[in-house]
Amino acid sequence: MAEEQWLDDSQQQTWRTYLTMVRELDRHLQQHLQRASGMSVTEFELLARLSEAPGHRLPVATLAEVTGWEPSRLSHQLSRTGKRGLIDRVASDKARYPDAVLTEDGLAVITRAAPQHAAAVHALFIEPLGPDGLGALATIARTVLNGLEAHQSHACSLHPHEE
Amino acid sequence: MAEEQWLDDSQQQTWRTYLTMVRELDRHLQQHLQRASGMSVTEFELLARLSEAPGHRLPVATLAEVTGWEPSRLSHQLSRTGKRGLIDRVASDKARYPDAVLTEDGLAVITRAAPQHAAAVHALFIEPLGPDGLGALATIARTVLNGLEAHQSHACSLHPHEE
Repeated sequence: MAEEQWLDDSQQQTWRTYLTMVRELDRHLQQHLQRASGMSVTEFELLARLSEAPGHRLPVATLAEVTGWEPSRLSHQLSRTGKRGLIDRVASDKARYPDAVLTEDGLAVITRAAPQHAAAVHALFIEPLGPDGLGALATIARTVLNGLEAHQSHACSLHPHEE
Repeated sequence: MAEEQWLDDSQQQTWRTYLTMVRELDRHLQQHLQRASGMSVTEFELLARLSEAPGHRLPVATLAEVTGWEPSRLSHQLSRTGKRGLIDRVASDKARYPDAVLTEDGLAVITRAAPQHAAAVHALFIEPLGPDGLGALATIARTVLNGLEAHQSHACSLHPHEE
């Protein structure tokens, strides 16, 4: 790959439009969720993953994998959510860190918030794009993710002559 | 809009694949930029916008608009970047808050980081998608953004019976 690989105007335009979409969609969903449930999208995602798990319980390592969060961010989020009484930590036989378990309050909160959040995702993402747009976006997302995986297996190939 | 508007399996799948792509692409670019320049993507975006402005200077309100950041986040970021000597604040005739100006050091840092970041965006986004994928993504992004704008002008229509 050339070191001086600039983007042309149209590529730059598409890149910035993509970034704006990501940011604005996130901001709108954040606002709706906050208004409907007082939760952040981060908290919602955490509780939703637990609510789908058997026994509403997951090892921290699995949560790290499904959320893609760095351990420090995950740990911060878990103690924040724990203080609000939405999850408990339960010692694990297998893992070093205690598992996270949804409390009854946590389950009530996510059960109440989920349809509101789904409605917002539907109105702001699913509906405007329609089946064709969603199909195209799924292909795009898989293409990018496959590319990232390929790059990961050749780590550092992006900066071969790094100082 | 129906209140109980759940996503079907395929919609849910596309939504989560989209979220994963956004998160992983961001994470990879973050890593490359950090390695190449010690900057976060947030800092990079801030300095890049200033470097493109006349006199390398912009009012805080304009920066808020182009970055889409909340004032508190922007203010935090500006003082962080200021402490590293990359920007100065200069009193403005027109605005309440001092303008942000790129320092010589800031210009040197962004000039050095920009080609590295462009190369990463090219390798992880532009190249894998190709012209057709980029065209499709531009259409998708504009569709979502237009939808958000339409919703904004009918604020609260998402939660008509909110408690």
